[in-house]
Amino acid sequence: MSATEERVTVWCSNDYLGMGSNKHVLNRMHETLDKYGAGAGGTRNISGHNQHAVALENTLAKLHAQEAALVFSSCYVANDATLATLGSKFPNCVILSDSMNHASMIQGIRHSGAKKVVFKHNDVADLESKLASLPSDVPKIIAFESVYSMCGSIGPIEEICDLADKYGAITFLDEVHAVGMYGPNGAGVAEHLDYETYANGGNTKGTIMDRIDIITGTLGKAYGCVGGYIAGSAKMVDTVRSLAPGFIFTTSLPPATMAGAKAAIEYQMSYKGDRRLQQLHTRAVKQSLTAMDIPVMPNPSHIIPVLVGNAEVAKKASDLLLEKHQIYVQAINYPTVPVGQERLRITPTPGHVKEYRDHLCQALESVWTELGIKRTSDWEREGGYIGVGQKDPEIVEPLWTDEQLGLTAFVRDLEAGEGALGALEGVLEREHVRVGQAVAAAA
Amino acid sequence: MSATEERVTVWCSNDYLGMGSNKHVLNRMHETLDKYGAGAGGTRNISGHNQHAVALENTLAKLHAQEAALVFSSCYVANDATLATLGSKFPNCVILSDSMNHASMIQGIRHSGAKKVVFKHNDVADLESKLASLPSDVPKIIAFESVYSMCGSIGPIEEICDLADKYGAITFLDEVHAVGMYGPNGAGVAEHLDYETYANGGNTKGTIMDRIDIITGTLGKAYGCVGGYIAGSAKMVDTVRSLAPGFIFTTSLPPATMAGAKAAIEYQMSYKGDRRLQQLHTRAVKQSLTAMDIPVMPNPSHIIPVLVGNAEVAKKASDLLLEKHQIYVQAINYPTVPVGQERLRITPTPGHVKEYRDHLCQALESVWTELGIKRTSDWEREGGYIGVGQKDPEIVEPLWTDEQLGLTAFVRDLEAGEGALGALEGVLEREHVRVGQAVAAAA
Repeated sequence: MSATEERVTVWCSNDYLGMGSNKHVLNRMHETLDKYGAGAGGTRNISGHNQHAVALENTLAKLHAQEAALVFSSCYVANDATLATLGSKFPNCVILSDSMNHASMIQGIRHSGAKKVVFKHNDVADLESKLASLPSDVPKIIAFESVYSMCGSIGPIEEICDLADKYGAITFLDEVHAVGMYGPNGAGVAEHLDYETYANGGNTKGTIMDRIDIITGTLGKAYGCVGGYIAGSAKMVDTVRSLAPGFIFTTSLPPATMAGAKAAIEYQMSYKGDRRLQQLHTRAVKQSLTAMDIPVMPNPSHIIPVLVGNAEVAKKASDLLLEKHQIYVQAINYPTVPVGQERLRITPTPGHVKEYRDHLCQALESVWTELGIKRTSDWEREGGYIGVGQKDPEIVEPLWTDEQLGLTAFVRDLEAGEGALGALEGVLEREHVRVGQAVAAAA
Repeated sequence: MSATEERVTVWCSNDYLGMGSNKHVLNRMHETLDKYGAGAGGTRNISGHNQHAVALENTLAKLHAQEAALVFSSCYVANDATLATLGSKFPNCVILSDSMNHASMIQGIRHSGAKKVVFKHNDVADLESKLASLPSDVPKIIAFESVYSMCGSIGPIEEICDLADKYGAITFLDEVHAVGMYGPNGAGVAEHLDYETYANGGNTKGTIMDRIDIITGTLGKAYGCVGGYIAGSAKMVDTVRSLAPGFIFTTSLPPATMAGAKAAIEYQMSYKGDRRLQQLHTRAVKQSLTAMDIPVMPNPSHIIPVLVGNAEVAKKASDLLLEKHQIYVQAINYPTVPVGQERLRITPTPGHVKEYRDHLCQALESVWTELGIKRTSDWEREGGYIGVGQKDPEIVEPLWTDEQLGLTAFVRDLEAGEGALGALEGVLEREHVRVGQAVAAAA
């Protein structure tokens, strides 16, 4: 087989839903490319503003039930530019930052020149003690994430909103790994927490998503394209639009990218099948690996971090998966995770149907054996580590409930265990094809 | 006529060569979209690295005759991330920055935490006095541009290289507005200064481009796409690749964008007609406006800044051009230019053939009369201002010489004045069509 014919299965892409190859997205991009060209030709203020930017920002504002949105080159730039701008414009501003926040937020806080107070990851008691220690008249921003990418933990959004109300802080929520993946419209975890309200078109005033001041997200992961954005009040968005050099002095995203991203968002707003199937595949892989004593770090999200605990071994495991099993899973080492917490980070997609999952699990079993990597029971004997093999573990329920996934009692009664998952997956896959055909016919 | 049928002529796009609608670029993008999808699916270190990135970076390194290149989301990010990284990693580093440097470089210097010393725009004497005042053992970076976007001036690259050698400084040259536009391969002004050597494939060792340590450029202006890059020694590029959060922690550009940009660069490497035609159109517009006493700010580049000198009037002029004449030229106001230096910034393209140019000049004449905007002769009576109506003006010759443009004595003898330009333009336009057809037939 020649080099160009070798095929590998990718198990670590952030194109979580396969929207990068969704035909509605691609069709929209092809049309837009032909009509509007490859690039925007300028910045938003000089010749690069256009209908695609306006339409995309309107869609994003609607998605997050906010007044306005603003698109950036990436969410790295959105986070950096927005935190730097707000932190420097509010006099004496203090930014309270979760200890596991992404590099882009850390940079934005640094660039703001504002005082930074780090609170323990997802620890609302620690956050409150830090808020309480600050003078009441000082402007405060609480910067945190919904899904933390490398461990799959989910932020206590509602509790943080409560603290923000109590102490008069602005909430800045990064939903980068959650948009497209959670909520009846795919708006993220904040929307998911009021699932019924958003699913049924109820009054969204006072919902958790409504209480967030600034939501940031990406067009480059679940939406399959590239670019980032913020959503919030019209005043907040205008402030950033008018003051952030990272927005003002750079070429706009290409029209085709903006049109493609808009198509992806709309598709995910109208169809929940991809993210439900992704969650079912995640559950299935987590269950299989757990049954095999392979150390999955427990979390309620769609991310499957498998603990290795050593940089060299993690690299070897990744190499072995690729060379011997034609599976690509990148090893995650320092500085992305702390030393000693090295891991493989697995991300299922709707396309990872049973044969791929079985192959992955067999390959991991083989690699774990070949390299003698610690099992969950090994970690347990040592008293547990970062959630793996912990004694008296906290029960971590998936954010997507059985009910929301459609795993009804009826289906569960019909077939037990993996059989039920398999049955529902079949339903979703058929539904997926049917909806896809209907949309294509209507296009 | 309905709103969607109204057409305007854009005269302020940075898609300087119309490459955003070049069919070779678009074809490559369509193919790549279909085969590799809408997005990269990850960062360069996790799942977003691919053959398109490698191929593009190889092409960029070759273009600039440097060992290596690295692609970023934009050149704003490239400048910011590179200067911030280098300035913070060299102990006690001092960055000497041209007073008219772009916001992205200013931000990068700020983010580096390094000491910043601003030298007067394009003033080598001032730069030397500042270099001489610094301790010899302190690391120094001279950060400057080739074409300054808002006034069209061109940096004294060779003299700055000489000073860098004399004082042991690193040179950081932003060629954002020059790549694709100057030089026999379109590598920018540094290449253009050794035109014959690069045109004839001679030994490039010791050329001005070779003497630059870091060149930065964009894929979003003359190359018609989006994205930015740096080129330099393998060690320098590896340093930035390994340390810059703005490179590491962000989604890669989409494969189709990278493939399209590569096609644009290669097209411009193999065909000089677009940039020659662009220069001819620039000359023609500058000559017409000068003859009409409309105040063009003199410069040797492809940019035509027309001085208005008042923010409100500049806005009105822009509005009037659009509403009454269906011409879009954005007014450039503070903070992009200093207060009192407000202007219209006109950028011709190869597509702005005579009928469009005549229309533009007539429209500007009408607007200047209607709003009573100062003419060159008005500025002259006041003693001149930023190059306009200056007594004893420095002669500003275009960087592209008559010889390089093909304005040979033969053609000039054949027809005088605009006639000659028209004749050559005809030649180039026919050549353009012919080359285009040949490339299409070969594809």
